[in-house]
Parts: sequence; structure tokens; C-alpha cells
Amino acid sequence: MNPAEDERLARISWARLAEPEDPVAWALIDKLGLQEALDLVVHGSRRASNRAVARFAARLQRWDLQQDLAMTDRAGARVLVPGDAEWPDSFAALERPPWCLWVRGPADLAALAPRSASVVGSRSATEYGASVAGDLAAGLGDRGYAVVSGAAFGIDAAAHRGALAAGAVTVAVLACGVERAYPSAHTGLLREIGETGAIVSELPPATSAMKMRFLHRNRLIAALTRGTVVVEAGLRSGALSTGRMAARVGRPVGVVPGPVTSMQSAGCHEAVRQGWATLVTETAEVIELVGAIGTDLADRKQGPVEPVDELGTAARQVWGALPPRASREVEGLARLAGLAEHEVLAGLGELDAAGLVEQRLDGWGKVSAR
Amino acid sequence: MNPAEDERLARISWARLAEPEDPVAWALIDKLGLQEALDLVVHGSRRASNRAVARFAARLQRWDLQQDLAMTDRAGARVLVPGDAEWPDSFAALERPPWCLWVRGPADLAALAPRSASVVGSRSATEYGASVAGDLAAGLGDRGYAVVSGAAFGIDAAAHRGALAAGAVTVAVLACGVERAYPSAHTGLLREIGETGAIVSELPPATSAMKMRFLHRNRLIAALTRGTVVVEAGLRSGALSTGRMAARVGRPVGVVPGPVTSMQSAGCHEAVRQGWATLVTETAEVIELVGAIGTDLADRKQGPVEPVDELGTAARQVWGALPPRASREVEGLARLAGLAEHEVLAGLGELDAAGLVEQRLDGWGKVSAR
Repeated sequence: MNPAEDERLARISWARLAEPEDPVAWALIDKLGLQEALDLVVHGSRRASNRAVARFAARLQRWDLQQDLAMTDRAGARVLVPGDAEWPDSFAALERPPWCLWVRGPADLAALAPRSASVVGSRSATEYGASVAGDLAAGLGDRGYAVVSGAAFGIDAAAHRGALAAGAVTVAVLACGVERAYPSAHTGLLREIGETGAIVSELPPATSAMKMRFLHRNRLIAALTRGTVVVEAGLRSGALSTGRMAARVGRPVGVVPGPVTSMQSAGCHEAVRQGWATLVTETAEVIELVGAIGTDLADRKQGPVEPVDELGTAARQVWGALPPRASREVEGLARLAGLAEHEVLAGLGELDAAGLVEQRLDGWGKVSAR
Repeated sequence: MNPAEDERLARISWARLAEPEDPVAWALIDKLGLQEALDLVVHGSRRASNRAVARFAARLQRWDLQQDLAMTDRAGARVLVPGDAEWPDSFAALERPPWCLWVRGPADLAALAPRSASVVGSRSATEYGASVAGDLAAGLGDRGYAVVSGAAFGIDAAAHRGALAAGAVTVAVLACGVERAYPSAHTGLLREIGETGAIVSELPPATSAMKMRFLHRNRLIAALTRGTVVVEAGLRSGALSTGRMAARVGRPVGVVPGPVTSMQSAGCHEAVRQGWATLVTETAEVIELVGAIGTDLADRKQGPVEPVDELGTAARQVWGALPPRASREVEGLARLAGLAEHEVLAGLGELDAAGLVEQRLDGWGKVSAR
């Protein structure tokens, strides 16, 4: 075997033997390198005095690399390691990136990452949150963005579905093996995602979801994309932690506001108050946030402009002094508007030119709206 | 008459002859002083060549100071001018403060201003917005804050009512004479406000509300208080302009978020995005914003803390590897959690001490919640 292949197998082995980000594994690997650290653990694991090695003893007893490779094949998955063309550079932002990734589905992570956004949120989403998540994901998809999420109930599922509905690529990053449907109610959704997008995990096949694994998984969602949008999140929501991780690795974070009476929006509001997230209300604002700097700018919003707003001060004052339907003489307008008569006449001239007023037998009046 | 009384009468005259913030009046007064500028306008008003003076000609024809004083008395109002004990210092922040103020009601503006907040918003408020405005105003009232608003439909009315319900002082600043009920549907509300709080205007009695006057009025709402909260506002709402004015005169501005699907919250969201307003979700956050620096701090919000969140990493990993109801042996826990057995035992020790796990015949299990 060549050295690259050796490293690939060492990475797959570490993914089985240690939890993601495991500090003992990282300490050993930092000191010895992937392969030598693995050799130490495998061949020195009976030395009970070596606490670092003892950590992996329980898993070593059941470790079977060939079986893991076979399971990967059976799952229709491929394994990516750093250096592969499909390996996304964006994981370089992580202090402890995945050793390798299992991927199912046609999407190319490296190709999609530069134009992608994560859309995440609470499992116990409201109808409002799910609807906004679906709209944002569809909007991002329409603009050619891949939508990354965690396939959970609530916001995650709404985001994947919105992207699918827009015919866009969507990526589910799981906290279990890629062959598993978690949650099982999303079997159909995950099948759809796998057909056009990708299902991704740093955990080997036959690994089940556990609480700590969601936190590790969240850092992948946060780092993979150009930015993360949290649509709904309670104050201690895992989605909020995804947002915080995105901010920590230098990715912009958007949060969607909601009613202050909804606990599902409380985490989003608090993130804005704490200053590490930007309030976003629509797709264009998300794209402004995650898009290339200086391009993809959202229009600055303003309400409908009334014709009179474009005119000078005197014209606007005269306009305000005109009754809705009746007419008023220049003298009365001067008194009401607090202007000199020549100023009133100038204002009326402007309003007249704009087609907003007309002179009648009994004075000036507003042209009635058609 | 003494000079102070002369100045008071000159100010009352200017309030009648010129619109609030009138640039011509201010230019004359800046150059000549209140009294001399008034003399010029009154005695030189027939000089048609003098454009500055011509501005006030229409109003001079009907000007009657004695009648204005009599109307003030009949309205049960008093006139405040700078230097009066009741004159609020906070108006010093305005480039063009009111010449004088008409006030009806027992509240002392100078005394209440240091502990006050403006609560304003859209006339076409939603049920949600009105309910939040009422709650915030009542909460502010409970904490001894006076609530200032504009007596308009929607948010303003809900704010006044919330303050009244809390038995708090509330102040309505009008864009018409203080003897008028504007809007007329709020006759009863304004009567209530006048009984315990105050109704305030810089416009003399018998002045009717006009569009431009609302903008001038809004600057008084913005400057009078320690800060302004905009509860709901469309993108071109007058309430948003009150918020902008408050920011311009150095007062903190809070805005309440709402559904992104509601146009009534769009102005609030945009204000946060533009960076001149702070998102607020409850009374404590408003008080933190408008209260004295370093005091009145809102608790930083966090969700309910689970007992296991307080424990060490190993304990939390073991906890995550324990099944909800069944038991699991130490070896299985080590494998699932990716820990050495001695680490699992240490984690179990911590969990045991916290009363969260128990040892059974078939391994360790979670203590069932009572």
C-alpha cells in the first residue's frame, strides 16, 4: 500500500476508535502522527499503565477495519479524507476537523461549499418557524446556494424540504452512521436528500446518535458552509450552539426574529442582543450575509414612497394643510401651514406640476386619487 | 411686566405665529432674540419686501395673545417655559426645542423625565404588538417609570392603557392643542391620562393636528424621555421616525421584534439591521437600555440548566451513553462513550454523587425522574 492509502485507513480507524474531537486521540496524533499514534494504541493497548492508551481499549476489542470498509460499501457510501478533491477546504477552520467523512449521494462537498448556507433550528419548531425556514431554503436554492442542515425534526426538515422543492442541492450532516435514518420518521426525506444531494457523517457506519455526538456534528454544519442561519432556537437549543460555533470559526451567523412571546425565538433574539448574530428577515439578507463581500448586497428596505415625499418642504407643508376633499384659499393655507403667501404659491406650483393639486372656484384642492 | 414675564409671552406668541422648528422664526430669533424678533414681525409685517416677515403675515392677522391666554385657562392648562421648575431639562438635547409647552394634568414633567421611557408604534398595530406594548408599559410602570406616547390608535393607546392599568404615570404628547381629543375615539383615554398623568403640546389651544405637526411632535416624545421603544413599525412608519430622532439626540432606542411575515415589524427589524436600535424582548431589557448605566441590568438570559450540564466532560459523556431506562455495564459505556474504563468509573462517580445514576444488578442506569 502507498502512504496515502495508509493514511486513509489510519483515519478510518481513528474515526472508529475515538469520538470526534477526542482530546486524548488528538494529543497522541499531534505528538506521533496518525499512523504511529494508531500503532501505539493498537499494539500497546494492553499496557494498563498507559492511561492514554487505556481510553481506546474497550473499542479496540471490537475493532475490525475490514468490516468497516465492507459496511461502507454496503451503505453505498464513500470515504473522504483531506487531500481528496471532494474534501471541502472549509473544514480547515476547525481546530479538530473530522479524521474522515462518510458521504452518500451525488453532491460534491468541495464544489458546493463556496456557495452554501446552513439553515438550522429548533426541533420543536412552530408553524411560523418551519414556514420561514422552508421559504429561506427555497430562496437560497433558487439563487444557486446549497442548503446544509441536520435532518432533525422541525426547522432542519423544513429547510431540507424547502431546498428540495426548489430543486436545489441539500446536504444532511448526521450524528450517526450515514446508512441510518435518524430520526426514523425522516427515512423518506433522507432518501430524497441522498438522491440529489448528500448525507454526510464523520462517524463510521453502525454508529448510533448520542447526545454528545450532536454537538460534534454541529461544528461540521457550522464550518462546512459560508454561513449559518438559525431560524428558531430556544435559549439552550442545539441550533444556537451551531450558530455559536459558526461565529467562532469566523462564519457569519444570521438569526430570524419572531414574536417575543415565543420561546422558540428567544435564543435568536438573545444572539442578536449578545452581538454575535445578525438579524435576517428574508433570503436576500441571508445572501448578503453569506455571499461574497461587495456582491450579493440586499436592497436597503424602504416603504412605498408617496409622490409628495419627493417634493420640497413648502410643498409638503401646503399638502398637509389641504383638506382631504374640500378646497382652501391661499391665505388659509398660509395660516395653517405657517408659511408666507408667496411660499404657499411656490409650494402649490410644485404640487400642481406633480399633478397632485388643482385650482377650483373656491380655492385649491387635492386631485382625487383615481 | 418683568423681563421673565415678557419672555414667557413672547414664547407663547411665537408658538402661535410659527410652526414648531420653523427655520425662518429660528433664524430671526437667533439673530435678534425672542422679543426683538417678535417686535420686528409684529410691527414690520407690512413691509412686503421682507420675505422673512411675510412668512408670518397670514397668522398675524388673526393673532390675539389675550385670547390665547384665555383659551389656555379655559382648557385647564398651564404654560411652561424654559426656566420653570417643571420644564424638563431633557429638551436641551433638541436643536430647536419648543418655545413653550401647554400641559394639562397633575404630572410634573421635570420630575418624571429622569425615570421615563417612550413607548410608541404603528397605528395599524397587530393584536400581538398591542399586547406587547401594553405589557411593556405596565412593566415599566411597575418599576416606577413614566410612560410617554402619542395617544394614537394602536401601539400608543395600548402603551397608555398598560401604564394606567399599572397605576403609573403616563404622558400623552399631542400634535394639536391640549384641549382637543385627538383622535376623538380616545376622548375617554385622554381624560384618564389627564387625571393622573399629563397631556402635553407645544401647539397653542385650538390648533388642529396636521401631518407635518406629527413629525415635530415626535421629536418631543423622543427627547423628553430617557429612551424610546418602538413596538411595531412599518418601514415608513412615523413611530420609526420617533426612534430615529431619539437616536439622533443621543437617547437609546429599543425595538421589539416580531414575525418576519408581519409588515408591522419590518421597520423594527430594519432598525436593528441598520444598527441604530437595540432589540428588546421584555421590560427588564428596556430598563437596562434606558436605566442608569451600571444599574438596572437585565439578567443575561439562559434556559433551564440540567443537572448533568454542571458536571465534567466524562460524566456528561457517560450520561449520553446511558440508555433512557435500561442499564449498561462499564465496558459497554466505555465503548459507546469512547472513554477508558477508569474514566467511565470516574464519570459514574460524579453522576452518582449528583443522584443521577444508580448501580443495578445488570449495570448502571439513570435514576428515573420523580
